[in-house]
Parts: sequence; C-alpha cells; structure tokens
Amino acid sequence: MGNFKFIENGSTTSVPGFRAAGVTAGFKRSGAPDFALLVSDTPANFAGVFTSCTFAAAPVRLCRERVKNGGTLSAVAVNSGNANACTGKAGLDNARLTCAMAAARLGITPDEVAVGSTGRIGVQMPMDTIEKGLDLAVAALSADGGNNAAQAIMTTDTVPKAVAVELELDGKKVTIGAMTKGAGMIDPHLVGLHATMLCFITTDVKADNATLQAMLEVNADDSFNRITVDGDMSTNDTVLMLANGKSQVEIVPGSENEKLFKAALLEVMQTLARKMVTDGEGATKVVTVEVVNAKSVKDAKLAAEAVANSLLCKTAWFGNDPNWGRVVAALGYSGADFDPELCDIYYDGVPVVTDGGDAGTPESDLADIVKKDSFTIRCDFKEGGSDYWVWSSDISYEYVKINADYHT
Amino acid sequence: MGNFKFIENGSTTSVPGFRAAGVTAGFKRSGAPDFALLVSDTPANFAGVFTSCTFAAAPVRLCRERVKNGGTLSAVAVNSGNANACTGKAGLDNARLTCAMAAARLGITPDEVAVGSTGRIGVQMPMDTIEKGLDLAVAALSADGGNNAAQAIMTTDTVPKAVAVELELDGKKVTIGAMTKGAGMIDPHLVGLHATMLCFITTDVKADNATLQAMLEVNADDSFNRITVDGDMSTNDTVLMLANGKSQVEIVPGSENEKLFKAALLEVMQTLARKMVTDGEGATKVVTVEVVNAKSVKDAKLAAEAVANSLLCKTAWFGNDPNWGRVVAALGYSGADFDPELCDIYYDGVPVVTDGGDAGTPESDLADIVKKDSFTIRCDFKEGGSDYWVWSSDISYEYVKINADYHT
Repeated sequence: MGNFKFIENGSTTSVPGFRAAGVTAGFKRSGAPDFALLVSDTPANFAGVFTSCTFAAAPVRLCRERVKNGGTLSAVAVNSGNANACTGKAGLDNARLTCAMAAARLGITPDEVAVGSTGRIGVQMPMDTIEKGLDLAVAALSADGGNNAAQAIMTTDTVPKAVAVELELDGKKVTIGAMTKGAGMIDPHLVGLHATMLCFITTDVKADNATLQAMLEVNADDSFNRITVDGDMSTNDTVLMLANGKSQVEIVPGSENEKLFKAALLEVMQTLARKMVTDGEGATKVVTVEVVNAKSVKDAKLAAEAVANSLLCKTAWFGNDPNWGRVVAALGYSGADFDPELCDIYYDGVPVVTDGGDAGTPESDLADIVKKDSFTIRCDFKEGGSDYWVWSSDISYEYVKINADYHT
Repeated sequence: MGNFKFIENGSTTSVPGFRAAGVTAGFKRSGAPDFALLVSDTPANFAGVFTSCTFAAAPVRLCRERVKNGGTLSAVAVNSGNANACTGKAGLDNARLTCAMAAARLGITPDEVAVGSTGRIGVQMPMDTIEKGLDLAVAALSADGGNNAAQAIMTTDTVPKAVAVELELDGKKVTIGAMTKGAGMIDPHLVGLHATMLCFITTDVKADNATLQAMLEVNADDSFNRITVDGDMSTNDTVLMLANGKSQVEIVPGSENEKLFKAALLEVMQTLARKMVTDGEGATKVVTVEVVNAKSVKDAKLAAEAVANSLLCKTAWFGNDPNWGRVVAALGYSGADFDPELCDIYYDGVPVVTDGGDAGTPESDLADIVKKDSFTIRCDFKEGGSDYWVWSSDISYEYVKINADYHT
C-alpha cells in the first residue's frame, strides 16, 4: 500500500528544513556519542506519545506538558547515558534548564525545546555535560546530521536506527524522516506506549497538532506497541513528531492525503519497530506471533502477547526447539477466551497443532522453521473475526549477560 | 506460630496409613525414576487445587472431576516425562485407563484413584510404560517410600522436595507429609494455582472434603501462589491433599484445632514453595519482594508481582547489580495505584530509595546485599494499610541453557 519510497541512508534530516547533530558530551564512560540535537529551522507543529509508567522520567513529564500546552517546537535535545528518572524536583528543574540553555544558543524560547533522555535511572543529570553537549552540537548542526544524531541516542543498541521515505501528495514531494533507539526494556503491554525507546520523527507536511497527534497515536498502536523484547517497560519512552509545513501539502482529517500520509508514516514507524526487535538485546531471531479468528481483539491481543512474552517460548526459540507445548501453555494462561479443542497452530504455514492436539508434522520439519532468522507462529482460534499480531524476539545467554552486566 | 515440629527426612509416608513408591518406568530417556504411586490403606477424604490454564492437561481435568464428585481417594499415580496435555479425548481416556489399571492392582475402584503428570506436552501417554510403572510401583510400595516417590516426580528439579511435620491436637499426634516438584514454568499470576508444580499432601486428621478444600485454597494463596521463577504457568499444576482420619483428631471449621492444623499445613506448603524457588531453574538466589502500606491488597500484589517477574530485575540480581532503577520501573508499569513521590525502597532494611529518589546509600553497600543468597526488597508506599509479598529468583545463563535445551 502507498506511493512512498524509501530514501537511501534516510534520516530525520532527509526532510527539508531540519538539521541535526550527534556528539560526545561525556555521559557515557565509553566515549561513544551521547548527545543529539534536532532543530527545525522554522517553528514546527508537533505531537507526542509517552510511557504509561507511573515513575515517568523528568523529560517525559516536561514533554507531556509541551503536548498539553500546544504551540510549536523548534528543537529537541536528547542525551543517552542518564535517564533523568527518579530524580524528583531537581531532575525536572534540570530538564527545564536544558531547554533554556538550548533555547539561548538557538535564539528561540525555552518552551520551543523538548528533551529526551535514556540511560541509568536515579542519577542527577550532570548539567556541565549537558552544557558541553549543547555547545558541541550547536556547532555541529548540519542538514545531513541525522545519522549522527541516530548514533548518539543509542544505549545497548548495536546499530543506529534511522529511516526516511518520500511520497507525492497533490503533485508535491513530502518527506518523513525518523530515528529511534531501543533494544531492551521493550514491551507492548500498556496503553500509550510501551518500550524503552526514544523515537523522533520529522516531516514537512502542514498539519495541526491534533491531526498529528491522532495519526501518531493510532500508528504507535500498530507499530511500537506491537513489539516486545523482555516485557519490561521504561520510565522514559517517548515518541515525538515535528511537522514544519515546508512542503505546503496540507493534511486534513478524513482526506485522501491523510490516508496516504498516515500509511507512509506507519511504514516508517513499523520499519523502526522491526529494527528494534531485530536489534533486541541478545536477540538472534524475530518471531511474529499472530492470533486470528478470535472472539474479540482483546482475546486475540491477550493470547498473542502471552506467547510473545513467554520466557519459556523465547528460550525455546533461542534453542531452535519447536516446542509447541509452551505456545499452547502460554495461550492457555493468557486469559483469552477461546476453545482449546478448536485451536490450530501453524509455524510459517505448516500445521503444528490441529484442534488442540499434535498435527503430526515431524519435529525435524518444525525445527527447520524455528532455526530461521524470522518465522511466524499463527494461532487460529476458529471462533470469531478478530486478529492481533506482535513481533517478539528470542532470549539468549547474551540477553542475560547484557542485563546482568549493564552499567552505563 | 504453631506447636508443630519438622520430622527428619519427612515425606508423605511419615503419616501413618500411607505407603508410596518411586520407580523407573521408562518415560524419561535418562533412566531416572519417573513413576510414583501414593496409596492410602483406607479411603481418604481429599481436596485439590489446579492450574487455571485453559489448556488444562488430561490428569488435571480428571482430578477436577474427582474433586467435584467428592467421595474418597485411595491412590494417586504420578508420572514425570510426559504431561498428557494437549492430547485430546485419547489423553483423557488414557488418564482414566491409568486409574482403572491402578485400581485393578490395588483392589479398589477406579474413581478412588487420582493421577498427575508432568513433562513434555502434546505426546500421547505410552500406556505400556504406565503399565510397567504400575507393576513396579505396586511391588515396591512401602511405608518409607515417600522420598523415593518425591524423587520420581522430578523433572528439571535438582533435588527432591519432601517434608513432614507433626503436631499435637487434643493430646494426640497428628502428622502432615508432602512432596512437590517444580523448578520452572512457575508464576503466581492466576487464580487457583500458578506454578508448573505437582504437590501431594498426606495427613491423618479427620475432616470432610469441604473443610480440607477451604484450608488448601487459602494456604495455596499464601504459599505456592507467592512464588515465581519465570512468569509462565503450566497446563498441569496440581495440589492434592489426602486425609485418612487415622489420628481420630477431628478438624471442624472455626475450631482451635482447625487454626493450629491450618498453620502447620501452611508451614509445610510454604517450606515446599520456598524449596521450589531455591531450586528454580538456574537460580542462584531467592529474593523476597514485599510491598507494604499500599492502598489495597490489589495494588500491593500488582506492584510486588511486577518486580518479582521483571526480567530486567531478575538479570540484575543475577549480576549482583543493585540497580534500583529497574525496581522503580517495574513498580511504575505494574498498574498499581500509588504516588511515586512517596515511595521508599529498602534492601534488607537499608534505605535505597526515599520519597521516589536516591536515598544516597553507597552502591557498594547495596551490592554487598544483592550478592547474598537471599535478600528482601521492601517497597513502602506510605499510603494505606495493605501488604503483599512474593518470593522470586534470579534469571541466569543456566536458566536460558536449561530452557533452550530442554527435551524430556
């Protein structure tokens, strides 16, 4: 679907009117880039979705306030290596100070700046490092800095994640760019957004904040909320979208333009979501869990998420073990309403379970499927018309190693 | 509490009137014992609680029927190595046939026999192996066979788990014995019972089935439902209690005897629950997660279980990392209603978080606590009067190895 195409090496700065930078400020002991600045040359309308975690980090609380107050954004400052979470009033003050410091350097007002943070929880933000990051980043701002910015927001990610697409609307070119980070603490379980992830999206369409917000929320439910690495959710999850209007293409709710733009935006968000699962901490494969023909979407979702989050399923996948008993057990405890005697299960289309019992496919055939880098587990409840799917990853020794050893 | 004392090497056969055996029938490729038979010399009243998994295994469905129909039990036949789950009508027929075969050999009726199974899901029960197991076990039945039986029901358990206590009621000696298996697929999340576990309890009190059932359910909520290893729940969870009345001590609801007996029974069940967590697959430590002063038990439970099941917390514990940020994140996404700015957290009584922020205790002090074989994380919401606790374990490389490689 859609008339969009991907831009090679695309990023947030593939969109006209946006500049970005990624620099080493010193939050990370490793010396890797850890501070990113994204700037819109003109005030941009914007939208945001955030973690539903009760312990929302200071930058999330600040961004929520920005979304609530409306208006425009011109810059986003993001650091990796310190989450500015559980830092109380001082943390929120520091987030505000970051905005003020960025605004002073960019000649804008503090409320035109948003912030994002990821890293260790419970440590106050070193503001001299923020200052250093801002100085370096403002000097480095560039119309092709998007990939540097994507690199600077990484934590346990092994590869930077950026993408851009262009499409034609009203005979004019429209561009969407985005970057994301996130490889662990990722779970789709909660309303709003559910991953240790930061995502920043740029575009040059004209749309008011409410229109942007509606598209972002619906698409987040069909992308970032469909992925799970470990079932944990972060204090810092943030997705922000900025639209500078430079293309002069207007997006009005209910229009054909909206439909096409939203589809392209979904492709961008799903591509990044898929990249996050593929890069899941220690992950060796991506498993799509589909539940079809359930009585309700709620039942389909409960069932798909139970399988996708089952530690026993995830370790079996790592072990190339087709062990469908664990899939069945997870469906069974999911809380979904379904008749086990009707349930069929397929691995990449090959029957595994028929009417709740062994379909008789030789285990070696199934093992060949489970060995692959990606495969699909389809559970057919044969009872209704509701479907749901989730992307999951396996859990390996490496996951345990990363998370047993992780100190920023 | 209680006037009970533990019996050295106690087991189900520490109770007068019970015999047991554990033999190698051939369900397991390893040649380890895999079939247990527990027999009451006289018909015993009984009670049972079971998995709430939709895909309940054939033996669970059969046992539920026994509990519903009431009457008495005289024998329980248990195999490890095959779960008889997802085996459809044939599986249920095989469970019934097992009862009939046991009854014929013991001179009782089939409905006086209960069955339990644990192992691989989705494989029909090899009935010739059941027959061999029954022949060997009937021949081996002995008044000190309880520990052999405990050994024969193990799967990934590294140690057999049996215990017995005795207490004096009305000036007479009363005994409670029990055995359990379970080291993975263990989770406290669901109503009824929530662990890949089998537990068989014997006693010589006189009590009707309803009285036994009430005590068993309440105590299961305070023991087996308080433990989590991996958040997965099994198709086969079963707790059965048999009371043969031989002590002539009657347990009447509301009596002092009931109070004392129930407390002793809880001690037995908690001791076995603790043994299961300690023997959790790959576990190197036991962590008690307490949430106190919550607005409701529901809030306290949601919060405690989120921390206890957090993969990021569990890997941090394995890595001796005091990372309280992960505890805070789990509390935050738990769905519990609490004010993060009021929350205090203690590790073994040492302040870690005060009013939602760093308490300032040096990380090295906290690391010394997290290194221990067992420690307690106490989260004080300072808002209400409701508490909840859970026993959890860490997740190690070994957990992944066991579950990536597990084939019965």
